[in-house]
Amino acid sequence: MKVDVIPTVNEARVEKLTGRSVVVIDVLRCSSTIVTAFIAGCREIIPVETCGQAYSFRDEQTLLAGERFCKKVQGFDFSNSPTEIKDQQLGGKRLVISTTNGTRAIQKSAKSERSFIGSFLNGSSVARELLKYRKDVTLLCAGSRDEFALEDGLCAGFILSKMLELNPALELSDQAFILIAAYQHYESRLLELLLQSTTGKRLLQLGLADDIHWCAKIDVTVFVPVLKDERIFVHPGT
Amino acid sequence: MKVDVIPTVNEARVEKLTGRSVVVIDVLRCSSTIVTAFIAGCREIIPVETCGQAYSFRDEQTLLAGERFCKKVQGFDFSNSPTEIKDQQLGGKRLVISTTNGTRAIQKSAKSERSFIGSFLNGSSVARELLKYRKDVTLLCAGSRDEFALEDGLCAGFILSKMLELNPALELSDQAFILIAAYQHYESRLLELLLQSTTGKRLLQLGLADDIHWCAKIDVTVFVPVLKDERIFVHPGT
Repeated sequence: MKVDVIPTVNEARVEKLTGRSVVVIDVLRCSSTIVTAFIAGCREIIPVETCGQAYSFRDEQTLLAGERFCKKVQGFDFSNSPTEIKDQQLGGKRLVISTTNGTRAIQKSAKSERSFIGSFLNGSSVARELLKYRKDVTLLCAGSRDEFALEDGLCAGFILSKMLELNPALELSDQAFILIAAYQHYESRLLELLLQSTTGKRLLQLGLADDIHWCAKIDVTVFVPVLKDERIFVHPGT
Repeated sequence: MKVDVIPTVNEARVEKLTGRSVVVIDVLRCSSTIVTAFIAGCREIIPVETCGQAYSFRDEQTLLAGERFCKKVQGFDFSNSPTEIKDQQLGGKRLVISTTNGTRAIQKSAKSERSFIGSFLNGSSVARELLKYRKDVTLLCAGSRDEFALEDGLCAGFILSKMLELNPALELSDQAFILIAAYQHYESRLLELLLQSTTGKRLLQLGLADDIHWCAKIDVTVFVPVLKDERIFVHPGT
């Protein structure tokens, strides 16, 4: 079982996705927001690229979440903020989400065999799910503003470390070796590193420290969101 | 002082090079070969892209080294092999070198303020040299076949770790944080990791284990090759 990492969404080429299990990782904050929305009871999530597409979905059962340059989109219900969404009653509701990098990465991942949403909040469950399907794996780090993002790389390292614990025979790419080591090196001070990351510093300046603190939490849930027909679900019972 | 890393030569954009000190890192094997040639007494090295260019330089004082897909080019004196070159008498000679990725990275680096050649063999001296010039730094990892290469990333992490020891106030990019951690995690078993890397495995299959063993050696020399007017020198006395 081969395991590879794509460091930014710009580098996501089809041959690294086709026939594989893919995990989209955008820790700050899209994938953390998606996982959190399911914790809050959300039924399904529709990732869209443009704000116009998001508005077209609005109805009584549908709420809109999203950001452009870390700020809430006008007319949306929520920002792309997991802590804002954590305290909502989303029971049975549908969420439409549009962000700068995360939703683009999710759409690219649709070319894979099976596409999951990963974060620190659900990393160990993602690792177990990937091993269950026995397909080669690509961890697709969204990155930020076309650059590699520390928090996504560390989360990839976290998921890879968990996979290796369960199956030491994985065939790791060069990038995978690096990220496993980086995660294990920083494991005891993840929050500190997230606060020092480029995206972390940007969110701090906007007064969004709570989001960083939440997104650095490990294995808060067993939910593993999966993309199917352009919608994101969690299996009942997971 | 900002410090950034470019993970593969394909990602080397001009804005990350201009006005900066740049270190070209192609551990297996171009930058290790260049450093080794100076240890063997070589006077200057001319990196060229094509074999035709290399042939045009040939004279009594000039030897040709290079590879395509890890194998010696026909008509050249040496392969791109540091252990082959280590035992030569190159006193006062000029070496023309042409490799698949390394020489391309060197040529890209010419857009910088100052361009050095880095490897495990001279990493600590490279770190000291970078700090001396007080310019922002870019470590340009050559990579292999358009992919990130483990050995280049670990060497970048080594040079960055040494810089940080001497100047803890460096402003690190997200990639730099990752590679420092990876180097420190694997520090005690560098050779083992180089043997497991994609390039390492390829060289092993070709019977070139000696080169990997040599390239994994730390601080064998204080020579810091520098690129000037399309030629590579070392300062007398370094």
